[in-house]
Order: sequence, then structure tokens, then C-alpha cells
Amino acid sequence: MKPVLYVIKIGGQVVENAALLGPLLDAFAALPGFKVLVHGGGKRASELSRTLGIEPAMVDGRRITDVSTLDVVTMVYAGLINKNLVAGLQARSVNALGLSGADGNAILARRRAAGAIDYGFVGDVVSVNAALLNELMQGGRCPVCCPITHDGSGQLLNTNADTIASAIAVALTEYYSVRLWYCFEKPGVLLDPDDDGSVIATLTPDVYAEYRAQGIITAGMIPKLDNAFAAIRQGVESVVIANPENVFKGAGTMLTTLY
Amino acid sequence: MKPVLYVIKIGGQVVENAALLGPLLDAFAALPGFKVLVHGGGKRASELSRTLGIEPAMVDGRRITDVSTLDVVTMVYAGLINKNLVAGLQARSVNALGLSGADGNAILARRRAAGAIDYGFVGDVVSVNAALLNELMQGGRCPVCCPITHDGSGQLLNTNADTIASAIAVALTEYYSVRLWYCFEKPGVLLDPDDDGSVIATLTPDVYAEYRAQGIITAGMIPKLDNAFAAIRQGVESVVIANPENVFKGAGTMLTTLY
Repeated sequence: MKPVLYVIKIGGQVVENAALLGPLLDAFAALPGFKVLVHGGGKRASELSRTLGIEPAMVDGRRITDVSTLDVVTMVYAGLINKNLVAGLQARSVNALGLSGADGNAILARRRAAGAIDYGFVGDVVSVNAALLNELMQGGRCPVCCPITHDGSGQLLNTNADTIASAIAVALTEYYSVRLWYCFEKPGVLLDPDDDGSVIATLTPDVYAEYRAQGIITAGMIPKLDNAFAAIRQGVESVVIANPENVFKGAGTMLTTLY
Repeated sequence: MKPVLYVIKIGGQVVENAALLGPLLDAFAALPGFKVLVHGGGKRASELSRTLGIEPAMVDGRRITDVSTLDVVTMVYAGLINKNLVAGLQARSVNALGLSGADGNAILARRRAAGAIDYGFVGDVVSVNAALLNELMQGGRCPVCCPITHDGSGQLLNTNADTIASAIAVALTEYYSVRLWYCFEKPGVLLDPDDDGSVIATLTPDVYAEYRAQGIITAGMIPKLDNAFAAIRQGVESVVIANPENVFKGAGTMLTTLY
């Protein structure tokens, strides 16, 4: 039997809120066994962008990444947020090691071709170097991955952190029985976005399709859930979507194809 | 006999000049065997600092690092510069992997106590994790180290890149016969700072002491040379100080204790 691995993705709202982040890192550190942390940081990137006089441009939650914006996200994701998370985990006796996709060729991506929208220096994942991540974990280290990738020809690329988390989870099914957790600000996927008590406990592909058709699940959640179901279809054992408090208690929304 | 290792430090003037950087990375990639790249990036950090309305404060070439400045240097050194160097080396078939001192606990430091001057979040190196660097190199990877360290308790610290290069060089003498190269904008240590033809070919501790006493070697060069001689006394085979063009030709100034 393969050992269990947790791939945990934390979003900008969590990572940039000290009151949430401390307890989350405590819980992450206490989690036994193999684990990978993936983080975003969009809120802070947008703030820095504005301070530098570059108005952030988003389409469907994706950042249009011109050359200056690429510098901003590289600084914020790979520098500020990644290194503070790594130092925070080191302080909790987790031997964390931060990675962008360029480091050790961890994640190779391809610049997205300009279509109706030109996203600029945005990358779609081509491959994850599962051997590198496995080697680091077998050496007692915990990879902390930021959403910056490279194209192998010297170009860094801004890449969606949810996609990176699911690509890493899928790639590591080669070695591990993988559980993928998405931590965000809500207690789970909600039936009513204004009612935190309306968490959907289990979501199957059929029910998801129905909720989408009815317009109950919309906008921001769709790429996240599409990603998550794709990961399950590719061998990830389970996906949980919840806030940091719920996710470590096994609450929130669990995606499953089992019934 | 121990295998040869090159530890090459490139300063801000080199790293932030595309015309110099490309050929330097080509030469670095062509260098056979084991190698570590250490970089600065102070010029770019000062620029970003000013754009953000934080006037850089330097004392004896060392940056006073308040909490906002620490964020700036973390973004610029560990993010922007480190990841672009790593991607540039990956494009040249060097399996580079970027590290701050927090990553894998690569470099542990201690915050400098406030004396006559309070440098803020500035760290002095306590220890280098030579086992980690060796393991990465034995796995075919090339560490690319930025001058951000941590104190083991969650605090990142700004640390002098020259010092980091010499500390890494010294620590790796356990496994390698280490050659330490400092690349900066001058062709070598100069007898006359205004005459690039006045490169001192070899510098012994005695000659160095004499030049210092005579005021020939001053200010910025002194910590660099003190560092370099200290590295030699601790087992580093040779230290060369030169511009990128000279250093890969074996020109510039070589420090030696041999005669």
C-alpha cells in the first residue's frame, strides 16, 4: 500500500491573515507523514501592484500578467510569501523547502497562447517533476510550492495555484495515496453563498452538474471544482474544500466519485 | 582527493545588467563539475524601496533593514532575482535550485544585536547546512543561494551575500576542494581605483595589510577581502576577485597565503 500524502493548498485570504495563518501552520505541522504545501497570494500581489501604479487586471479570476506584473507576482509569491511560510514551518520543526516551478525543474509550463484574451505571461502546467518532490520528501523535507512556473527556456510564468495543487497531487499518485485539501475562506462549498451553515457535505459529479445547471454553484467555484474532480478522475483519493478550521477536522465539502 | 567545487558570487552590478548576465550564465553553465551560485541584488532592492517610498539607509555598505525593507529584500533577492537566475540556468541545462537560508534550513543566522548602529533585521551566519547542499549537488542539482537567511524561529534576516558565499565555501570544504570566486564590476582589486589596468594579480595577507595601512585598499573592498582571507584560513583552496570576463579566464586578483 502506498503511504498517505497530503497536498494542501492555501489561498490568499488565508496566507495573508496572520490570525488564520498561525493556527493553520500549527495544524499543518502537527499533521503526521508526508505533506506538500501549495500557496497563492493574489491579494498581496494586487496590493503591491497598485502601490507600484499597475492596476491589476483580472478576467474570470485570472490575472492578466504583463511583464511588470510578472515581476510583481514573482516577488510576492516566490519571495515574500514563500519564504515567510518556509521560515514559519521551520520554526515549527517542519523541514520546509520552498520551490517555484523553475527550481529543480519542479513544474514545467507552457505560455498560454493569446486567444480572445491575451493573459500575457501565464502558464499552463505541462509536467510536474514528481521524482524531485518524492526525493525531497523521502529526505525528510516538505516542499512548499508557489504558483510561479517556467517554460524551460528561461521564461517565468504566472500559474494558477489551484491548478498547481491538483497537478502536484495527480503526479504524486505514482508514489503516494494522495489527499488534496483546498483551504479557502468559506467553511465549504455552500448551497447559499450568504449562509455559512449551508455547506454541502459531499459532492459527486452528478450533483455538481445539477447544481451548476441550476446556477447554485457559480463563478469562482467552477474552476476550483472542475480542477478537483479532474484530480479525482486521475487517481487522487479524495478532495476536501473547506476553511482552515474545518479542513483539519475533516469537515467542509468532500468531493467523491464513490456514490 | 576531494572533487573540485566552484562557489561563485555575483554582485548586484552583474546580476542586474542583462548584457553582463547572459554571457556570465553561459560561462557558468559551461563550467564542468560541482558549482554553487550566490547572488546579491542590492541595486534593484534600492530601486524598489524608493518606488515604495522607503529611502534606503546604508551604513558602511550594509543596509539598515526595518520591517518594510526586509519585505523588499525578500521579494527582490529570494523572488525576482533568484527565480530569474534559476530559470536562466535551467534554460542552459543546469539543473538549478534556488534557496534562501530558510529553505531546508540551508543557512541559519542570528539577528545582529543593536550596538552603536541598529541594523534591524540583519543576520550573521551561524551555520551552513553543508549536508543539504552536498546532497543536492550529488543529485545533479546546482544550488543558487540568495542573501536571505532565517533564525530558526520564523524570522527572515537580510544577510551580506559576500559573507554567505564565504560561509558556504568554508562549510563545503568538508566534501570538496573549494574555489571561491567573487564577480564584481571591476577587473580585480586595483592599486589605483581609477585605473582598470592596475589589477593586483596576487594578494597575500602581508601585502594586503601593507596596502591597507597605506590607504591603497579602502572602504568597500575591506569587508570583501577580510571575508576572502578568512575563507582561505578556514580551508578554501583559492579565492579570485574579478569581473565576470576575467574570472572565467583565470585573471583578476587571486588571494593566496602560499607565499
